[in-house]
Amino acid sequence: MDITDYMHTLGRNARAASRAMARADGATRNRALLYIAEAIEREAAALSAANQLDLDAARAAGLAPALLDRLALSPSAITTMVEGLRQIATLPDPIGEISNMKSRPSGIQVGQMRVPLGVIGIIYEARPNVTVDAAGLCIKSGNAAILRGGSEAIHCNRALAKLVTEGLNKAGLPLDAVQVVDTTDRAAVGTLITMPQYVDVIVPRGGKGLIARLIEEATVPMIKHLDGICHVYIDDKADLAKALPIAFNAKCHRYGTCNTMETLLVARSIAPTVLPQLAELYKTKEVELRADAEAQAILAGYPHLSAAVEEDWSTEYLAPILAVKVVAGIEEAMDHIDRYSSKHTEAIVTEDYSAALRFLREVDSASVMVNASTRFADGFEYGLGAEIGISNDKLHARGPVGLEGLTSLKYVVFGHGEIRS
Amino acid sequence: MDITDYMHTLGRNARAASRAMARADGATRNRALLYIAEAIEREAAALSAANQLDLDAARAAGLAPALLDRLALSPSAITTMVEGLRQIATLPDPIGEISNMKSRPSGIQVGQMRVPLGVIGIIYEARPNVTVDAAGLCIKSGNAAILRGGSEAIHCNRALAKLVTEGLNKAGLPLDAVQVVDTTDRAAVGTLITMPQYVDVIVPRGGKGLIARLIEEATVPMIKHLDGICHVYIDDKADLAKALPIAFNAKCHRYGTCNTMETLLVARSIAPTVLPQLAELYKTKEVELRADAEAQAILAGYPHLSAAVEEDWSTEYLAPILAVKVVAGIEEAMDHIDRYSSKHTEAIVTEDYSAALRFLREVDSASVMVNASTRFADGFEYGLGAEIGISNDKLHARGPVGLEGLTSLKYVVFGHGEIRS
Repeated sequence: MDITDYMHTLGRNARAASRAMARADGATRNRALLYIAEAIEREAAALSAANQLDLDAARAAGLAPALLDRLALSPSAITTMVEGLRQIATLPDPIGEISNMKSRPSGIQVGQMRVPLGVIGIIYEARPNVTVDAAGLCIKSGNAAILRGGSEAIHCNRALAKLVTEGLNKAGLPLDAVQVVDTTDRAAVGTLITMPQYVDVIVPRGGKGLIARLIEEATVPMIKHLDGICHVYIDDKADLAKALPIAFNAKCHRYGTCNTMETLLVARSIAPTVLPQLAELYKTKEVELRADAEAQAILAGYPHLSAAVEEDWSTEYLAPILAVKVVAGIEEAMDHIDRYSSKHTEAIVTEDYSAALRFLREVDSASVMVNASTRFADGFEYGLGAEIGISNDKLHARGPVGLEGLTSLKYVVFGHGEIRS
Repeated sequence: MDITDYMHTLGRNARAASRAMARADGATRNRALLYIAEAIEREAAALSAANQLDLDAARAAGLAPALLDRLALSPSAITTMVEGLRQIATLPDPIGEISNMKSRPSGIQVGQMRVPLGVIGIIYEARPNVTVDAAGLCIKSGNAAILRGGSEAIHCNRALAKLVTEGLNKAGLPLDAVQVVDTTDRAAVGTLITMPQYVDVIVPRGGKGLIARLIEEATVPMIKHLDGICHVYIDDKADLAKALPIAFNAKCHRYGTCNTMETLLVARSIAPTVLPQLAELYKTKEVELRADAEAQAILAGYPHLSAAVEEDWSTEYLAPILAVKVVAGIEEAMDHIDRYSSKHTEAIVTEDYSAALRFLREVDSASVMVNASTRFADGFEYGLGAEIGISNDKLHARGPVGLEGLTSLKYVVFGHGEIRS
């Protein structure tokens, strides 16, 4: 079969399954999650064997160690997947809730019912655990899913797809509610993102290059973020007992995550106090500092210091590198953020009430924080229970996206024979 | 200046103004609305004169009477615009509200703050009142706006733009917060919908042809609907005292609106009772009925009867024409709706509790009603206070869109020095 026909078939199947999923009650959807968990537990050895096939092929093809690491499905990773499904099953059902019910002068009552989006397409790299996480979130939220994982994980994803189907079947849900794209042909992605008649939203998970390409080509809306150029601004009224741990944690807790700080802004009046103390901390992790002239002068003698160039302000290092800039105060800090931020997460450290409120109100990012590490910008830390991705867009979902981001609201009207006059 | 450069200049201005608008408090934004209302009242005669220029040119160009009617700005239409602005000023401020505030185990408090979207582009036909309505809604919601009205209204829109600017200025808001595109060059629209760096969302208001073309070309997200193919299903358990007025009102209250019923579905067991009674009502309005074979047999002798063809089920007549079909019951009705509806508004008339709940839950449209006329699908009727448009999409805003649709939510985190461990 031609790849476009194949994808359209998956799309038609998914669309049909989505109606049954929207009808299914929460208990049935939870049962499917538990059956899938059970099946994965039972078939752990077979999954490891399938993963081994993928790993062998990837090693033979010379895949980078970091990618091999993501591809590997260890016994403990299998346990984590199983626990993840059981945890999703315990979350409240996002579907069917009616909110904002009001009686109107005409006599009708109007409210909004939370409903599934329909069909979700998920595009991700060779990480087999995402197959199960994404399937779990889509089932929980009453959607049908089409999953396209990195081709290096094809054996493992096939094995997982069988177990997901088994669980759906046992629960009496349509087998096509979750379909794994069973081809390594890259054209499949191009078709998936251009069939709005079958797919309601695409959630791409992967590197900036992949997502930038998808944005270029997609005609289906996406829940996505390109990158995380996150800022911490240490205000002149900052409490240093908070500022130092926050600026250290925001950079050094994990380097490769999108909510990691990439640029530190420090108010001029306290820069001579703050920067040397911070440098002591960063030195323990050999963090490279790329500083503007003023910060460079203060940091003179720091072993990993260089001059920041224009490009540094808009670079997501994902590494132990930090851009540092001295600013006059909150106004210049917010101007810098407005210009260079990717609108993911920004934090201010201050004890000044008005500065805190201004920063919260005026900084136009998905997450804005006072006196907390940017690393908290995360679905679990925010209490969403689960996270399908992060959105830097303003429409529909913004910031960490949980189950609610996979739903929509429709108006429901309870009438008693009313007509419009 | 080249048209692309001109539009990009408007875009840059709007983006800059949007920051000041987001910062402005609700009282200031309301003051601007009242100043604009005052200025329009004062300049009513000049506005009528500008409108007369447009009307003369349009008549000379042979514009259709219906379009001339929309272009005309009567003294009472001016009063309505003024009252509209004053009413928007009395609505609660949608901006700055923080909801869902929760304390998390880490110690941080997380909530969501309602914020403006940024820059709204509005594309509409030659209806000068839309200039003022749209400007009012964008100012109220803390956004900057770029307004592109139909070129036939250019004189009147220019005059209105001056008064809007005067009001913004008096309130101390940036003059570029509302910009009217001051060219009749059609290329302006093409640029407006493809500059996502400056425009956050486009609200197109106009005919299906215009919107279909915009969908094809736009790279900026849109809040839009293409058409309204709305259904009323009269269930076998319907109360005819409700069914007859609803089916009559949904078709005949106004023919040209998107929430008007275009297809009537009737359960087989009551069709022989319902259809002849309905025909008596429709006959008074000379409504043309396009019926499937079964309905045709029942309606034999109705003076404006013809056989429905496949195309009728997906046609938005916007006229005294109605497609009629007999179905076995709710299942077939929902299948028909799933296939042909534009997902705008559908209603069931029934006294059966389970049928009502199934219809509400399973029909995938922006508005789903029980025992009420589809004509209620409207921002004012739903209590939104104002309406910028209607969305048939599932992402971001769905159904009638009020001020909230022009806003986004960002996460705000109140910390006390917390770091991630």
